[in-house]
Amino acid sequence: MTEHRYTLTLSCPDRVGIVAAVSGFVAQHGGFIVEASYHTDLETQRFFMRQEIRADSLPFDAAELRSHFAPLAEKFHMTWRVSDSAVKKRVVLLVSKQDHCLNDLLHRWRSGELEIDVPCVISNHEDLRGFVEWHGIPFICVDMPNNDEPGKAAAFDRIAVLFEQHRGDCMVLARFMQIVPPDLCACYAGRIINIHHSFLPSFAGARPYHQAYHRGVKLIGATCHYVSDELDAGPIIEQDTTRIDHGDTVEDMVRYGKDIEKNVLARGLRYHIEDRVLICGNKTIVFR
Amino acid sequence: MTEHRYTLTLSCPDRVGIVAAVSGFVAQHGGFIVEASYHTDLETQRFFMRQEIRADSLPFDAAELRSHFAPLAEKFHMTWRVSDSAVKKRVVLLVSKQDHCLNDLLHRWRSGELEIDVPCVISNHEDLRGFVEWHGIPFICVDMPNNDEPGKAAAFDRIAVLFEQHRGDCMVLARFMQIVPPDLCACYAGRIINIHHSFLPSFAGARPYHQAYHRGVKLIGATCHYVSDELDAGPIIEQDTTRIDHGDTVEDMVRYGKDIEKNVLARGLRYHIEDRVLICGNKTIVFR
Amino acid sequence: MTEHRYTLTLSCPDRVGIVAAVSGFVAQHGGFIVEASYHTDLETQRFFMRQEIRADSLPFDAAELRSHFAPLAEKFHMTWRVSDSAVKKRVVLLVSKQDHCLNDLLHRWRSGELEIDVPCVISNHEDLRGFVEWHGIPFICVDMPNNDEPGKAAAFDRIAVLFEQHRGDCMVLARFMQIVPPDLCACYAGRIINIHHSFLPSFAGARPYHQAYHRGVKLIGATCHYVSDELDAGPIIEQDTTRIDHGDTVEDMVRYGKDIEKNVLARGLRYHIEDRVLICGNKTIVFR
Amino acid sequence: MTEHRYTLTLSCPDRVGIVAAVSGFVAQHGGFIVEASYHTDLETQRFFMRQEIRADSLPFDAAELRSHFAPLAEKFHMTWRVSDSAVKKRVVLLVSKQDHCLNDLLHRWRSGELEIDVPCVISNHEDLRGFVEWHGIPFICVDMPNNDEPGKAAAFDRIAVLFEQHRGDCMVLARFMQIVPPDLCACYAGRIINIHHSFLPSFAGARPYHQAYHRGVKLIGATCHYVSDELDAGPIIEQDTTRIDHGDTVEDMVRYGKDIEKNVLARGLRYHIEDRVLICGNKTIVFR
Repeated sequence: MTEHRYTLTLSCPDRVGIVAAVSGFVAQHGGFIVEASYHTDLETQRFFMRQEIRADSLPFDAAELRSHFAPLAEKFHMTWRVSDSAVKKRVVLLVSKQDHCLNDLLHRWRSGELEIDVPCVISNHEDLRGFVEWHGIPFICVDMPNNDEPGKAAAFDRIAVLFEQHRGDCMVLARFMQIVPPDLCACYAGRIINIHHSFLPSFAGARPYHQAYHRGVKLIGATCHYVSDELDAGPIIEQDTTRIDHGDTVEDMVRYGKDIEKNVLARGLRYHIEDRVLICGNKTIVFR
Repeated sequence: MTEHRYTLTLSCPDRVGIVAAVSGFVAQHGGFIVEASYHTDLETQRFFMRQEIRADSLPFDAAELRSHFAPLAEKFHMTWRVSDSAVKKRVVLLVSKQDHCLNDLLHRWRSGELEIDVPCVISNHEDLRGFVEWHGIPFICVDMPNNDEPGKAAAFDRIAVLFEQHRGDCMVLARFMQIVPPDLCACYAGRIINIHHSFLPSFAGARPYHQAYHRGVKLIGATCHYVSDELDAGPIIEQDTTRIDHGDTVEDMVRYGKDIEKNVLARGLRYHIEDRVLICGNKTIVFR
Repeated sequence: MTEHRYTLTLSCPDRVGIVAAVSGFVAQHGGFIVEASYHTDLETQRFFMRQEIRADSLPFDAAELRSHFAPLAEKFHMTWRVSDSAVKKRVVLLVSKQDHCLNDLLHRWRSGELEIDVPCVISNHEDLRGFVEWHGIPFICVDMPNNDEPGKAAAFDRIAVLFEQHRGDCMVLARFMQIVPPDLCACYAGRIINIHHSFLPSFAGARPYHQAYHRGVKLIGATCHYVSDELDAGPIIEQDTTRIDHGDTVEDMVRYGKDIEKNVLARGLRYHIEDRVLICGNKTIVFR
Repeated sequence: MTEHRYTLTLSCPDRVGIVAAVSGFVAQHGGFIVEASYHTDLETQRFFMRQEIRADSLPFDAAELRSHFAPLAEKFHMTWRVSDSAVKKRVVLLVSKQDHCLNDLLHRWRSGELEIDVPCVISNHEDLRGFVEWHGIPFICVDMPNNDEPGKAAAFDRIAVLFEQHRGDCMVLARFMQIVPPDLCACYAGRIINIHHSFLPSFAGARPYHQAYHRGVKLIGATCHYVSDELDAGPIIEQDTTRIDHGDTVEDMVRYGKDIEKNVLARGLRYHIEDRVLICGNKTIVFR
């Protein structure tokens, strides 16, 4: 449905001539640039770039594009990647019992809005099996025993194995109410996306709507972020807020919050799978 | 310009029949209710109410209204107040060097949008004297010596004296970059309004836009709140947020932030002077 | 799940003493008012009111409440209604091929967020049968022949019959791409809810995102409204907007628009089924 | 205060190699690109580009930059311009009696936020003379006789003369309640900026808040646009909306509206003076 494109993302130390070199390289092969974005991080003086190129304008495929580009990348000391829009990202979804994010993501998937593959859905509860399987997607229940740390560690080991078996590109915690262990976070840095039901850094941790209620804030929010070893402190991809007032109970906040959560997660995931998100320290550059 | 009205605000332990009793009292005297709002706080089971009554529909003035209402108020153990729209609130403004909030509030005052009296503006710098005096408003500079705690305490004592001499009803810290001492906060609880340049509780204290920049949030905000003895932790009256992205520097955030700050402060102050804000513990009820 | 409540909504010519009379009536029977809202329309001098009363605080049921209240209603020439939260509204959904609103509403229904009954889903296409029937809800396909006015009229007659057979309280056009004939609009005034994919009154009629694209607006929106005999001109219940920019194609707008449409429709429907919407001429009062 | 920069803006028929050619040109002279943005209009297949270059990174001044760039521009059939941040744009403000936009813009000017020169303020009323002159800015009153078309035409002729005498770069109608004649619009196409107090295309023409009130919309807005010969139909630069409800009178809308108007106008003007706005038919590209 979408035009076939290659997306080149890169970062390197900033200097004069990077854009000229890269766009010169693309032009020299007849490449038609559809979208281009740049950013220099002022603290690290690191340059970030993203270009979408029409695949049919180039005389070679993604593999050849990579090999042709490699020398230039080396010259500028780039960290870089070329994605091919014809190769869908494989997104493994993790859920617990709350299904508003799952329902939203699966609808975007089945309507073709979100061009991903969903090789499986993993949950620590059986509740959502029927809904997931109706979509023809395998549903795998991995028990998370309460108050049993070795049991939990084993469960997360199994999740990592399942993720590899299903050749996942990224993992989405779509209201998965378990804390991912640090080693898994480190192993898949920049590849595990969480939706937290508060406007971080306010109200990290458990029961954020209760915290918001007791503080008496006038807006609540949600945050889509990469998971890091520090709870709810990883690089933020997307956030949003909505207005509440004194008449709203915690239950009302939970209800309003669901609408923000699913929209923020869907936008964040979309940015990620379209290679729009580049990580810079604990911050993100999002080339929208 | 505005219709002459009395505003009755009250709170009391919740029970059946409060609305009937109060609206019965008003109706019995022919009072025409223009606006009415209610709220019960679920944690304290305390009832809050606000009614605006057309002054010309009642056969008596505000003083008589108060004396007629007192027995009913006593019966229900109410904390209550009657305001008269013909008596403008006296708002003392405190500023430092940044004048976007001052400029905004004085425009709303001189255009008649904000129906208040501004008996004086107090500042710890001389910079804004010319602009304030052009409005015909006394400008008083109170020096705040750095690194001199007794000197600062004396300065705040002088501010309190000035506030009393000018018969202030409330004090607005319109980007006044000094920490109000706890005794003054306690003395004027619910009467000192501050604008903080972050979406509290995130980024309390100094340099919130720098904090926001380093955390990599995707929205910034501002908070209008009553000052309490804990820094940036008093009851929140109004908040708002605006979207930023990775390309925005701290200076950009400061610039966007000013527009939120002045709007949030203006709304919060308006709610306060129209007796729309009732304090319940560390939270507010805002009857908009 | 939700507390059992009666909701009294009424309108009548404005005068002194209505609130006192109604709240006096409720208090006299020990009724505990949970939520109360009032409004006077300045042009018609008509008074509107809504009260939620805890059912267990009254000594009688909804039928008796109605018969006790009738004399007072007559005295004030009220148009009024008492709803019982134990009796769920029966909402018939109409869809064509686009299913984002349907998916959203059915999720809110099956998760218990939206406390309605959905007796059936009617469509002019077969596409969504599987998804609807998975929910255990009857799916009825009513063919809408193109360029065949008598055929269309017959189809709408059948829809009206189905609506009656299923004892529908309201009809929701959840992206139903057919124009409802005037007689049906008149017959069910205030009971047919539509979601239009523009910020009305801009871009009424067909292909609003194309219209928005060609006008070069910087925000797009959606409107939930009651259907009237004039296309896209009925009383507006709820609206919202979102920011776009020059880089967004019509397809991007359609995608962003879906998220607004489903949220605006869900909010509008919720207000309707909670009896929060009162119609006043071609405008609505929404007691949130 | 701001870094010295040259801003190159251009448009030309789209083809492969434009970015490479332009960035190659800049790099060849050692130019350091601070910000770069591109857009292709799909309907006209026209390419638009904006680059900010650090002045001190180039070995020549703006005039030389222009002469060096001219051959490349000719080759690609570009419409183009180089602005120098050291040369402030001269913005002539036109107002009537309402001063919220004027107050806002003059504050942004005197605080250094808006880096423009204001050679004069023109009004059809004397009301704002004192405020403008306090800023040290000439205030010129041009009478606009009612129901006297030749008189009005003469007044606008005088405004055009004043604009030329003060070497104006652009004209801002900061709530100037007069319709600019078509010849003036044509003469200064893309240089006259208006703020309209509705979310266009809804409620063009007179009394938009009254129109909004009668239609019963749930949000109101404001639109900053270039003036064209068709009233309120020129290319839109910026818009925004805010929520209202049934309780808001026309006067309330006017009050809320002022806050949107001034913010939308300030943003639109900022984009214009920073050469971020490129006109494409009746639409704008805004490179933020």
